[in-house]
Amino acid sequence: MAQGKEGFEGVEWRIRVADGSSEVLVPAPGLVRKAWLAIQGMISGFTMRVWKFLKKAWDMGVNDPRKVIHCIKVGLALTVVSLFYFMRPLYEGVGGNAMWAVMTVVVVIEPTVGGTIYKCLNRVFGTLLAGFLALGIHWIASQSGERFEPIVVGASVFLLASAATFSRLIPSAKSLFDYGALIFILTFSFVAISGYRVDKLLNLAHQRLSTIMIGTSLCIIVIMLVCPIWSGQELHSLIVRNMDKLADSMEGCITQYFNQSGECTNKEQVDKKLQGYKCVLSSKASEESMANFARWEPSHGRFNFRHPWKQYLKVGASMRSCAYCLEALSSCINSENQASELVKKHLSNSCLKVSSSSSRVIREVAESAKTMKKSSNTELLIGEMNAAVQELQNDLKSLSNLLNPSPTPENKNLEAPMEAKAETVPIMEIIPVVTLSSILIEFSVRVEVLVDTVEELANLAEFKIHDDKSKQRKLNDKIAPDEEETDGTMKALQRV
Amino acid sequence: MAQGKEGFEGVEWRIRVADGSSEVLVPAPGLVRKAWLAIQGMISGFTMRVWKFLKKAWDMGVNDPRKVIHCIKVGLALTVVSLFYFMRPLYEGVGGNAMWAVMTVVVVIEPTVGGTIYKCLNRVFGTLLAGFLALGIHWIASQSGERFEPIVVGASVFLLASAATFSRLIPSAKSLFDYGALIFILTFSFVAISGYRVDKLLNLAHQRLSTIMIGTSLCIIVIMLVCPIWSGQELHSLIVRNMDKLADSMEGCITQYFNQSGECTNKEQVDKKLQGYKCVLSSKASEESMANFARWEPSHGRFNFRHPWKQYLKVGASMRSCAYCLEALSSCINSENQASELVKKHLSNSCLKVSSSSSRVIREVAESAKTMKKSSNTELLIGEMNAAVQELQNDLKSLSNLLNPSPTPENKNLEAPMEAKAETVPIMEIIPVVTLSSILIEFSVRVEVLVDTVEELANLAEFKIHDDKSKQRKLNDKIAPDEEETDGTMKALQRV
Repeated sequence: MAQGKEGFEGVEWRIRVADGSSEVLVPAPGLVRKAWLAIQGMISGFTMRVWKFLKKAWDMGVNDPRKVIHCIKVGLALTVVSLFYFMRPLYEGVGGNAMWAVMTVVVVIEPTVGGTIYKCLNRVFGTLLAGFLALGIHWIASQSGERFEPIVVGASVFLLASAATFSRLIPSAKSLFDYGALIFILTFSFVAISGYRVDKLLNLAHQRLSTIMIGTSLCIIVIMLVCPIWSGQELHSLIVRNMDKLADSMEGCITQYFNQSGECTNKEQVDKKLQGYKCVLSSKASEESMANFARWEPSHGRFNFRHPWKQYLKVGASMRSCAYCLEALSSCINSENQASELVKKHLSNSCLKVSSSSSRVIREVAESAKTMKKSSNTELLIGEMNAAVQELQNDLKSLSNLLNPSPTPENKNLEAPMEAKAETVPIMEIIPVVTLSSILIEFSVRVEVLVDTVEELANLAEFKIHDDKSKQRKLNDKIAPDEEETDGTMKALQRV
Repeated sequence: MAQGKEGFEGVEWRIRVADGSSEVLVPAPGLVRKAWLAIQGMISGFTMRVWKFLKKAWDMGVNDPRKVIHCIKVGLALTVVSLFYFMRPLYEGVGGNAMWAVMTVVVVIEPTVGGTIYKCLNRVFGTLLAGFLALGIHWIASQSGERFEPIVVGASVFLLASAATFSRLIPSAKSLFDYGALIFILTFSFVAISGYRVDKLLNLAHQRLSTIMIGTSLCIIVIMLVCPIWSGQELHSLIVRNMDKLADSMEGCITQYFNQSGECTNKEQVDKKLQGYKCVLSSKASEESMANFARWEPSHGRFNFRHPWKQYLKVGASMRSCAYCLEALSSCINSENQASELVKKHLSNSCLKVSSSSSRVIREVAESAKTMKKSSNTELLIGEMNAAVQELQNDLKSLSNLLNPSPTPENKNLEAPMEAKAETVPIMEIIPVVTLSSILIEFSVRVEVLVDTVEELANLAEFKIHDDKSKQRKLNDKIAPDEEETDGTMKALQRV
């Protein structure tokens, strides 16, 4: 059959294409070949998918090496606890229950220090509370005779499990001891039910507690000593990064709108900057979980134990309210009704000023949050922003001169021959720029709210005040910006 | 001392206040009394907090009885599995390892059916895979001599735990088998490490698997039979509810703006309606988790196994983009620059038309999604909405007539005495309404995108088409809306 096929393939069908070249027509393949091709396709498709997955994983590892480090940390902690088991001290101390230490390590370890401590403390306290309660219930059950024992235990399991589950559904309790309530149910059922069979109940409870202690301490040591990732530090950087993104988006958005013919050398990078505000819109959930874990962390770096993490959520919320304005702005910019060049020119100067001054304010508070120093410049910059807003409002007022009152029959002939008349603009071409301007003004209002929340954060977290010397230097630098300057706040100013 | 105090209290200091009455000055209490008051305060404060917490919990239970039912379900499942343990069949079958069944129930049970099935399947497959792998590793380790055995086991634990942890950090893998990877690590370490001590390793693996099977099947039975809560159904209702909220907010917002002097009989209820869009803004996370669980659910109610849950996320995203517009709108409405009544009057009719027609469109698609029937009216309603938008644009164009071109010296005297001139308006009083109108127009564009995503959902989920009879009836009803009508789609139309 293969031979016949080859013979058949000896005949070649050619078709002449318009450009003079000719193409070979390949005969339709047989069933076997079709099946073979299908299998080949499936295999190569599967390989491609696996390859893509691996490539994605590799890229993720390269982009964020801390994730790889976390994996190594988990492997390390598990191996250490297993070796502990192998080396017999753990096995001889608590026997087969040594496995609890291994389990604890597996379920308790989290990427961030805060997450791990939260789980560890919840696990320890949940186990302790449940253990004591279960011992009490066991004693009561054993006093009530063999017949009632299962009933007492069953009823207590039912009641306590229901109550603990209910507490997991209350939001304020959930964020504090969701995991603890789970462990409570787990341990309580374990001890209370085992109590019926295992004679050395106290021994069991003690072993469980001590293995959990071994596991949790090992986890905390590994997580805190090997390249620790602090939730608090992460939240802090996220907030600062988002503020910078917000400022970049705002400035980029308006600059692009008014200089559409301008230089577009690095379009991709510009687009990325413009879309930065979307990160702000979508980071609510991660901010909340980070703030939730951060409060469990001991003081680290520049953050005390009782750092006002909740205030970061407020800062995040006011950033989002700014980002909503940017959403509305970007829809203005992409709107179908394009504004006339004349009106754009009329307003471009003041719009650009508002956008650059408001992003300068945002960058200033971002820098203040980053360095954890109260900024002495914010007031000044807010003043500049408000002046720019005032200028924009004046420009808006003077727009009337450009407007073209549609001539009514009575005054058509009476109208004076004005020079300006050649340049008047229909109202529909004004609307997009007017909308943009009023959203811009709203944005500046929201920026002030953002500044207030950051200032509240500065008060709560007791940010230091910049010393007067550097303040003076900065003011001088505003006049002579060429001077060399290494101060962080100043760099932010110069960047603008 | 107490007596002296009483004696001292006999003297009363009075102060005469401006209005002629007099007030008694109470002397500062002593130290003991202060301490007593402080303790009293602490106790009453603590009682108050506990009382508040209990009240909150009670309210939560009353507002959402399904949460209470969930708690009872958890208690029930745990009691059943404990009784199973007490009644000896489970204990005699698998001995002390019966406890695994109890643990499985505790950690696997979730409020929704999808969540429970996700965890059950992940637990079973994670255990299976890890068990087989661990047996293989154990065999290799036992072949490599007593000296190398811990090294082989330790290295394999390190490698596999790291790899599994890494897979948990990849978003696409995380949503599918996050819990499975955790269970994989747990079981693998458990079996591989125990292998060193426990002789009957195969027996252990078998017991673990069978107890897990018992626990998971019990959970699935309880969760699916006793008042089941389906993630899919929840997601579906959430999306429909949010669409209705969006329509209510939109309509309420514009109506309130243009009829501020109108009847405010039920202010609280109105405010609640206006704030409805905020639910849309904040429901991204819950939509995602619901969609994630929903794909594990078997076909239930009107939803098949492969219902296009992911499309719901797209619908949610386009609803959020509408809600961003509403955010911008509400900031316009609360803005400081109030519009002149004249301009408001000029635009109110068409603005109200756009708002009511666009919310009618949203309600129509909401109804279509709710009843899972393709709506035959959407096209018509979109047409109406676009006509309203066109009318609004025309009204905007004719705004020029109201505008007051600030008179320049040259044409001041030449200007004709127009009747309309007395009613002209400065541009700053026009801006708020113009901004509002253009956001309204943008909103209508986004509503069309929303309609498209819902239509895509209708195609993917194969919504039924309304039969021609009811379609005809509806068209007739549009002409004579007094006629009685029980059809759901129609009700939505009449509600508007």
